[in-house]
Amino acid sequence: MKKHNFNAGPSILPQQALDKTAEAIKDLDGTGLSLASVSHRSKEFDAIIKEAQQLMKDLLEIPEGYHVLFLGGGASLQFAMVPYNLMNKKAAYLNTGNWAKKAIKEAKFFGEVKDIKNDDYYSLPKGWEKEVPSDADYVHITTNNTIFGTELRQDFDFNMPVVADMSSDFMSRPVDVSKYGIIYGGAQKNLAPAGVTFVIVREDILGKVDRKIPTLLDYNTHIEKDSLFHTPPVVPIYTLLQTLKWIKENGGVKGMEKRAKEKADMLYSEIERNKLFKGTVAKEDRSRMNICFVMNEEYQDLEKEFFDFATSKGFVGIKGHRSVGGFRASNYNALPKESVEALIDIMKEFEKQKA
Amino acid sequence: MKKHNFNAGPSILPQQALDKTAEAIKDLDGTGLSLASVSHRSKEFDAIIKEAQQLMKDLLEIPEGYHVLFLGGGASLQFAMVPYNLMNKKAAYLNTGNWAKKAIKEAKFFGEVKDIKNDDYYSLPKGWEKEVPSDADYVHITTNNTIFGTELRQDFDFNMPVVADMSSDFMSRPVDVSKYGIIYGGAQKNLAPAGVTFVIVREDILGKVDRKIPTLLDYNTHIEKDSLFHTPPVVPIYTLLQTLKWIKENGGVKGMEKRAKEKADMLYSEIERNKLFKGTVAKEDRSRMNICFVMNEEYQDLEKEFFDFATSKGFVGIKGHRSVGGFRASNYNALPKESVEALIDIMKEFEKQKA
Repeated sequence: MKKHNFNAGPSILPQQALDKTAEAIKDLDGTGLSLASVSHRSKEFDAIIKEAQQLMKDLLEIPEGYHVLFLGGGASLQFAMVPYNLMNKKAAYLNTGNWAKKAIKEAKFFGEVKDIKNDDYYSLPKGWEKEVPSDADYVHITTNNTIFGTELRQDFDFNMPVVADMSSDFMSRPVDVSKYGIIYGGAQKNLAPAGVTFVIVREDILGKVDRKIPTLLDYNTHIEKDSLFHTPPVVPIYTLLQTLKWIKENGGVKGMEKRAKEKADMLYSEIERNKLFKGTVAKEDRSRMNICFVMNEEYQDLEKEFFDFATSKGFVGIKGHRSVGGFRASNYNALPKESVEALIDIMKEFEKQKA
Repeated sequence: MKKHNFNAGPSILPQQALDKTAEAIKDLDGTGLSLASVSHRSKEFDAIIKEAQQLMKDLLEIPEGYHVLFLGGGASLQFAMVPYNLMNKKAAYLNTGNWAKKAIKEAKFFGEVKDIKNDDYYSLPKGWEKEVPSDADYVHITTNNTIFGTELRQDFDFNMPVVADMSSDFMSRPVDVSKYGIIYGGAQKNLAPAGVTFVIVREDILGKVDRKIPTLLDYNTHIEKDSLFHTPPVVPIYTLLQTLKWIKENGGVKGMEKRAKEKADMLYSEIERNKLFKGTVAKEDRSRMNICFVMNEEYQDLEKEFFDFATSKGFVGIKGHRSVGGFRASNYNALPKESVEALIDIMKEFEKQKA
């Protein structure tokens, strides 16, 4: 049976990126060697990582003065690296969900944190910019809440570096990189298998803290060695390159934005129309990447039945996170429109049966 | 042309592990999903990581009270995590090479380091155990010097935790795990593609430092969540499992030791016999994993010619590290005996041409 992969992460990737990776694990471009067994200092891998860095720069129109790094350790390691490298005394964190909360927890090891939040995560704080202390060392945002399904699709102007965790909506729309000090994220949503973290960092914001930074946690270590201070995650970086190529072939980040918007609009419309379901977040804050919905009040006892029905039809990963319940359809770049249409079809079918 | 992969790391892996990985990237065990796109919280991945942990415990006869973790960030992140978690005031480090030196550099961020070393890295310090201060919090060893080609194949008794970086000889011989507090390493030599770090840690040595530890750098975080605190490197862990299965099918770590010894002995004998070449390290300290040799004095101008000759015959990765020069033949578990025989053949052929 054909599967429709709505996983929240690790998640669906372009088929051609997966096919190329599988081929390369058998034989990398006719070298007679597996991608898994080439040296990270070989000319083959040097070409791969350089092309990936350049393509990311091209696709996002990253200005001069920024470095593109591919590291290990996940976004969770960045939660510590960001304050290690940037915080002298104080930072502001926009608390838009569970991952923002985890970033805040780490930042508190290093200094004072202004935690800007709503009472819950079903909407984004409004007018939050005014709450950022003018003497903060940086302001940190988490652009997409993978769990509750909100998204902040706006670039902000501050008189301090803006640091953004874009793990779950990176490369799904254009961003004005010049407005950020650091953009980082785990690549396992829109770009690669789990294991590689992207970091786009503006060099002039570094070197301004007094603390000693362990070598591997210092961004300058990785900038100086161009992501080759130690062995990088070779296979995930290769897939990332193939995904970037697919993005380029499909209209770049503008093309991705169009795809994402079209698919998300279709599904949100159905959620609004369908008597059985309702969305969970404020309309203006809806994520295009993680579309969360629950059963309407009078149909709540049908939740498990719809889940089983969807599973029997080949839908994977649509269970909502345990802190929200209901359903979550993750709509990353590589998710085909057909999968969204198929989901809408079964929502309609289930409605016919039950309403 | 058939390639003989003598890369020092990332390096050769069992063909069946690579084949299984390539298949799984296309379709994981008939699930209709790519290994790269399954959730790390799915039952499929849960079975994979649990089996890998159990198999490692079985193969190394790891006693109760130890945890097997699969993390990101490489051995270089462990250089900081070890002192973060274990050092109150002082630690002893056996300095057997460049990687030991890097571990020492990080440890110095956290306290005092007794740096135990020889004048150079061509042999291992003798009687070094006596130099370990009795009030050290732990003693750290690096069992194999990948660059110079020495190896410490001995388990030590100390009245403090022994921490071992076994990145480049792990699973190539039995070790008595009960004598270690932590065994760690990057898996990209004998086990998996780059991107996953193995850590075997005895739980009772933790929680004895006063400092606050960032969440991701705290071993207890990963123990409590059984390596699933955040998204682990799914694909490298899958390959690691396949490699462990191959090790089991081939006699376990005793089988690996026999293979390694046989292949290393063959090559060292040829280096000794052949007029053109000579080994670089003290005989009693020779590594079975990284076999380093240079041209004999009178033939030194032939170095490039032999390298080109070997390259033309399909040999990959035999150039010595720039700090040693000459040649390095890495003899990891998966390197077939035929590749060692082929190397010996061309050494003989070259000798016939030149001597």
